[in-house]
Amino acid sequence: MYKGITIKPPFFEIGPKAFMYGERMLQLAKAADEASAKYDVRIILTPQPSDIYLLAKETSHLLIFAQHMDPITVGRGLGSILPEAVKAAGAVGVMLNHAEKPMTTADLYKAIKRAHETGLATIVCADSIKEAEAIAHLSPNIIVVEPTELIGTGVTSDKEYVIATTSAIKRINSEIQVLQAAGIKNEQDVYNVMKAGADATGTTSGIMKAENPEEMLEKMIRAVRIAWDELH
Amino acid sequence: MYKGITIKPPFFEIGPKAFMYGERMLQLAKAADEASAKYDVRIILTPQPSDIYLLAKETSHLLIFAQHMDPITVGRGLGSILPEAVKAAGAVGVMLNHAEKPMTTADLYKAIKRAHETGLATIVCADSIKEAEAIAHLSPNIIVVEPTELIGTGVTSDKEYVIATTSAIKRINSEIQVLQAAGIKNEQDVYNVMKAGADATGTTSGIMKAENPEEMLEKMIRAVRIAWDELH
Amino acid sequence: MYKGITIKPPFFEIGPKAFMYGERMLQLAKAADEASAKYDVRIILTPQPSDIYLLAKETSHLLIFAQHMDPITVGRGLGSILPEAVKAAGAVGVMLNHAEKPMTTADLYKAIKRAHETGLATIVCADSIKEAEAIAHLSPNIIVVEPTELIGTGVTSDKEYVIATTSAIKRINSEIQVLQAAGIKNEQDVYNVMKAGADATGTTSGIMKAENPEEMLEKMIRAVRIAWDELH
Amino acid sequence: MYKGITIKPPFFEIGPKAFMYGERMLQLAKAADEASAKYDVRIILTPQPSDIYLLAKETSHLLIFAQHMDPITVGRGLGSILPEAVKAAGAVGVMLNHAEKPMTTADLYKAIKRAHETGLATIVCADSIKEAEAIAHLSPNIIVVEPTELIGTGVTSDKEYVIATTSAIKRINSEIQVLQAAGIKNEQDVYNVMKAGADATGTTSGIMKAENPEEMLEKMIRAVRIAWDELH
Repeated sequence: MYKGITIKPPFFEIGPKAFMYGERMLQLAKAADEASAKYDVRIILTPQPSDIYLLAKETSHLLIFAQHMDPITVGRGLGSILPEAVKAAGAVGVMLNHAEKPMTTADLYKAIKRAHETGLATIVCADSIKEAEAIAHLSPNIIVVEPTELIGTGVTSDKEYVIATTSAIKRINSEIQVLQAAGIKNEQDVYNVMKAGADATGTTSGIMKAENPEEMLEKMIRAVRIAWDELH
Repeated sequence: MYKGITIKPPFFEIGPKAFMYGERMLQLAKAADEASAKYDVRIILTPQPSDIYLLAKETSHLLIFAQHMDPITVGRGLGSILPEAVKAAGAVGVMLNHAEKPMTTADLYKAIKRAHETGLATIVCADSIKEAEAIAHLSPNIIVVEPTELIGTGVTSDKEYVIATTSAIKRINSEIQVLQAAGIKNEQDVYNVMKAGADATGTTSGIMKAENPEEMLEKMIRAVRIAWDELH
Repeated sequence: MYKGITIKPPFFEIGPKAFMYGERMLQLAKAADEASAKYDVRIILTPQPSDIYLLAKETSHLLIFAQHMDPITVGRGLGSILPEAVKAAGAVGVMLNHAEKPMTTADLYKAIKRAHETGLATIVCADSIKEAEAIAHLSPNIIVVEPTELIGTGVTSDKEYVIATTSAIKRINSEIQVLQAAGIKNEQDVYNVMKAGADATGTTSGIMKAENPEEMLEKMIRAVRIAWDELH
Repeated sequence: MYKGITIKPPFFEIGPKAFMYGERMLQLAKAADEASAKYDVRIILTPQPSDIYLLAKETSHLLIFAQHMDPITVGRGLGSILPEAVKAAGAVGVMLNHAEKPMTTADLYKAIKRAHETGLATIVCADSIKEAEAIAHLSPNIIVVEPTELIGTGVTSDKEYVIATTSAIKRINSEIQVLQAAGIKNEQDVYNVMKAGADATGTTSGIMKAENPEEMLEKMIRAVRIAWDELH
């Protein structure tokens, strides 16, 4: 596990995917930067690779993570994302194995090792508790759990689920942090999942599709802080 | 075909792949920028996506192309390269279908259309004359021909090959420009292929693995100009 | 182009995909075998690879094609579909580049060459007229055109479309046969597209999801014959 | 974990990949069938999918496994390998995640579940001890460990390594069986790894590239039996 950066809970991940980029992304990033400082909540932002440089340069508190990188070393690899390149542009970490960019187990293991030797923290996605346990053996810094087990059950990431996933992962490696991603649509959802005991949560569409993304972002980060303080 | 940018021959492509990035890449880009102006040779540079913004901002003559992009629209797509994002970062074009990042025919067609509607020129790679003819129907701005047909024959991209490939492509669409990639190792190779009638050539390892990349770059661009002036 | 087999029009392709297999597939294949003889219509059946051997052995008129194969030679390649293996099992051809199994342009070109040197005819799918023209340069025996251009226009593969696609392909290589796939749901659709001048058509769900697949198959093959005789 | 089949140690896997198919494969399969009975050693054979039917029909003792299958259900999926189809053709299991056909963690988990609900045992490959531990959480029947950690160290799968990998996997799920794949070239290698305590081993090139594959196969299976009897 990469030890060069410690992301103290509570933290929050904003995933712009391919929704936001360029100037509009910069505007949201600045608002996130302020909210991070104001509420003392760490914010991981995963922009398009071409936005990493500008966002890293123009913000002070945000943790800029690449959306993906390839498990390669300096050399060949046209069309790849080189770990050293995103690091040089200002990223401090990388997301891996998102459901929209799944990796083979072998590549994921290589990528985690490459990230750590390059000096990048890793946040790795898992679709189920079993996969989260599997991935825990590969020692990423953070695991994102998407409770697809709960889909269609009418149950959201409640306290039992948060405890079950967190303890399953920490039983394998207690240093891994767990981010609960659970279809967060608004500040109430954020409050609920954090109040259920999560160390972190995050969203894409909750902010990207909000009428006013900056306002929604502010409300969500505030909800993280409130829930955290009530619980700890 | 995208008409927003015209790349007048002679031109030259430098492909850093995953060899060079960050500050070192910027240094080479500045040397390329100067050589482009000095010799009046257009230079396409295809950096890592995280380097696009800085290189576009710090150079005046270079044509910055993305190494790849996905055939997607604004929205979902974590881990993707969004056309609009590389455009916003300063790219004026995109390379597609390199042998190290091959695309399905359907995706390639979609990506060319997406590039053109986003305002990005396209440079598409082909492994053989047949594939180049096929790709010509998809109307990219530039086709890169890698004469794998010649591999092992002891023949390099001589005059006959240059004429054969160029005419095969232009017979299908006379507006497509043809870049002859032929294992260019030094300025003599550049001179030879341009003297054989090519509109453009390029290299990765010829520059990336040179003892002094800036010096080799300067020699190659000068060779382009000399061969071009002798021929035209 | 592979010359070892000539598929005289009219012909019809049945694509079981992963809908049908084993004993149930054999039953339908026998019905298709009879219909092929009865109506003098060539039928291409593309079963799961594990069904090729039995279907080829138990039928006399059907043309068994693999659903896909890899562009590899005898040797390594665990999990691949070896051209020589499907040939040995009784396949006489192979489908390539279906939208559910798209291939890179380079692999498609290699696969067509491998198929032909192994003694397998090729039926290659294209999503648009432009892609069909592109693929025509790679010299498959048959091109399947799916008029996605028409989707949402309320127009099916009418006479103009059939003529436009057929002539676009034959202008590049007059020996390529064109199969019009156009959301064929019943025998009337078959009649219409054949009457519009198609050499061939085919279906997956029209037969696979029919209440009585054997009965629908019989009706469709009869419609092919009737339309063909009326037109020629 | 699928309980419908128990593969009692010692067992041995023969992986023809794309080396052998059709009649030649059948001949080897018959020799393997005899050797399995003669030495009371279970043999898993993973042929091309188009060979499954014939080999299952013509042998009595062999355990025919598919080389790969897709994590899909009956329905769409042209070019896929449907679990139900390989089962219907006679396979009793499936290999998954070989280095030549790697799977995403999510697909691997789905495929193991699909295999088990279809009635197929699973043999899953891992490149390292860490990956083997990860995969153990997904409850396959057998894990193949390829000690890439040892490559270049001059050490083969000796007793320590066999014990280390076996215990790492069984600590997570004691019902999983462990196959030690270790560049087995001849009967001596087989003897050594089995004598080191392995429950199973296997080979591709050791048999496929042998001057006389049937003879080499016989020697290897005999070596399995001798080593097993000496040890137990």
